[in-house]
Amino acid sequence: MATVKLIEYGEASGEVRAVFDDIMATRKVDRVNNFWKALANHPPTLVRTWESIKAVMAPGALDPLTKEMLYLAVSATNGCDYCTTSHTASARKAGMTDAMLGELMAVVGMANETNRLADGYQVPID
Amino acid sequence: MATVKLIEYGEASGEVRAVFDDIMATRKVDRVNNFWKALANHPPTLVRTWESIKAVMAPGALDPLTKEMLYLAVSATNGCDYCTTSHTASARKAGMTDAMLGELMAVVGMANETNRLADGYQVPID
Amino acid sequence: MATVKLIEYGEASGEVRAVFDDIMATRKVDRVNNFWKALANHPPTLVRTWESIKAVMAPGALDPLTKEMLYLAVSATNGCDYCTTSHTASARKAGMTDAMLGELMAVVGMANETNRLADGYQVPID
Amino acid sequence: MATVKLIEYGEASGEVRAVFDDIMATRKVDRVNNFWKALANHPPTLVRTWESIKAVMAPGALDPLTKEMLYLAVSATNGCDYCTTSHTASARKAGMTDAMLGELMAVVGMANETNRLADGYQVPID
Amino acid sequence: MATVKLIEYGEASGEVRAVFDDIMATRKVDRVNNFWKALANHPPTLVRTWESIKAVMAPGALDPLTKEMLYLAVSATNGCDYCTTSHTASARKAGMTDAMLGELMAVVGMANETNRLADGYQVPID
Amino acid sequence: MATVKLIEYGEASGEVRAVFDDIMATRKVDRVNNFWKALANHPPTLVRTWESIKAVMAPGALDPLTKEMLYLAVSATNGCDYCTTSHTASARKAGMTDAMLGELMAVVGMANETNRLADGYQVPID
Repeated sequence: MATVKLIEYGEASGEVRAVFDDIMATRKVDRVNNFWKALANHPPTLVRTWESIKAVMAPGALDPLTKEMLYLAVSATNGCDYCTTSHTASARKAGMTDAMLGELMAVVGMANETNRLADGYQVPID
Repeated sequence: MATVKLIEYGEASGEVRAVFDDIMATRKVDRVNNFWKALANHPPTLVRTWESIKAVMAPGALDPLTKEMLYLAVSATNGCDYCTTSHTASARKAGMTDAMLGELMAVVGMANETNRLADGYQVPID
Repeated sequence: MATVKLIEYGEASGEVRAVFDDIMATRKVDRVNNFWKALANHPPTLVRTWESIKAVMAPGALDPLTKEMLYLAVSATNGCDYCTTSHTASARKAGMTDAMLGELMAVVGMANETNRLADGYQVPID
Repeated sequence: MATVKLIEYGEASGEVRAVFDDIMATRKVDRVNNFWKALANHPPTLVRTWESIKAVMAPGALDPLTKEMLYLAVSATNGCDYCTTSHTASARKAGMTDAMLGELMAVVGMANETNRLADGYQVPID
Repeated sequence: MATVKLIEYGEASGEVRAVFDDIMATRKVDRVNNFWKALANHPPTLVRTWESIKAVMAPGALDPLTKEMLYLAVSATNGCDYCTTSHTASARKAGMTDAMLGELMAVVGMANETNRLADGYQVPID
Repeated sequence: MATVKLIEYGEASGEVRAVFDDIMATRKVDRVNNFWKALANHPPTLVRTWESIKAVMAPGALDPLTKEMLYLAVSATNGCDYCTTSHTASARKAGMTDAMLGELMAVVGMANETNRLADGYQVPID
């Protein structure tokens, strides 16, 4: 259960509604996720986080699918249930196939294994 | 300083040399990294880890560059100095440009931030 | 579901009851949290952990509210659901307002982001 | 060693110099830390991160010292050497005494211990 | 809820069934855990992970109980609910008593505490 | 470099010296590690941590070698360089052979891999 109230559109301030509207317009969806409803308790964090996410996840030198897969790899490594679930969904929406997810998780697993082997043996940088 | 001896080719057993040879042949390099020299202290782990890495990092539904970038994203998230350094190098070798690295790290940073915001507010899955 | 039985006051040994009594008296509450009921399976850990927490969280150079907020910042960073929930509650009880929680989480988020950027680029200490 | 070039003021673009100037003016220092010189390789990340840090760390419902101590608690928990070193320094500059640092680390240590005890026994939320 | 379908024996391919059969035969159980049903979505990861686990967890210089306890210590440290639950069960099956679990968790707690104290003070290696 | 002064025996207070004396007597060594010299900056933490470690690491339902190996497994997983180095040394002193270290790290590696696979697929507890 969230430790803060999830703020719904109908009860949100104008500043919060403007962010919710932009999220829905940018993502072409008709509702916002619980994450944003929680952040709405602190409007400066809501505004800053959304503006940052929007800029960081926009297509650039990396395409949106690659960015979503990187996001998922980090979220799985951190064991964040919410983010793993939501970014698996957004990566699929961006084009991630079952085979791509399988290979992504295989890489995430191996990286976590070898990270700890390198740390565990205190391997000096080449 | 490593907590185990780094085993050099000249002093390695035949089983270890065979793995070192395969690493050098597969990667088209003429030396193996310290990571493998450390794992050589426990040949079953050396063999298994190399066979796993070779299989997992081979091109498939995801291309080698994407896989290297996922590896780097995990390594940075885990704060593994050795792996971050070595996989930045291997990602560059696989084609990662400065602009791609910049965007990769921006995604890694944002994912770590929002992972902890989602956990910190205990946001329920949508 | 806990991997050990949660030991209730009525079924606890005298040693465990003495700790439960001290927790309730110190915190001015009439029940102990599940955390302590789980630790009661290993009385030495229950006694040691409670004595440590009582000493560490007592007012000193830092006030109790600041200590609770530090506890919450660590718990959110570690993604510990139980501790995040219970220390959000205890921080509120110690005086944390909604605005303070909002700023705390903003700092936690930024610190997690920049920690991984510093690690990700392997920035040398100044 | 950083995986990117540390960009010095003299060789920086106008956009980067403007951020460096603002960092020095805001913090009343005559140089910028290596962290910012590394981020300067990707100007959008430099700008966004600095603007975010400036906003998040400004006095509000929490004072700057409390914010710096929260930052340090997260950095120590994540094992980020760079951030732990730099935020210990900035917390001291903001007024953290030796006694406060001692208590802060005691809280960080206990929180890390009990986070893992709660996770280790899978204690259900009260 | 899993982000992939949990594949049951009755609907599995021959390659997957062969792994499921080997898991059940090796562990002398008549069903496989959800973990394997999830991995079955990517047969190469299922095969590789099972073969690795089977080799790594076999008796050798360390006995199976010690290996299960090490596995549990890592899982609790990573806050992995699934793995903590399943490896507490398998460690008990391998002979872990309540007293051993109590001492194991005490060590895990202290190690997590002192790891962060050492990092938090940036203690130089002796 | 440590963020606090490392306090040597010759300059320590009587309270700190008493702890240093007990560490040297208990461990049958003639010097204390840097970790304790750092903690000596905050005597209550020094006393509490040493008393806790002494109690937790004493032989009980688990023998000292098993406890040292658990400590090492946690330290490697957390990427704590100081603790990984010092607990590899103390585990060897307690009887850990090269073969045991090899198997320990293999378990640590696999546990880290499967922890993230379980989290990455959000596998429901059986």
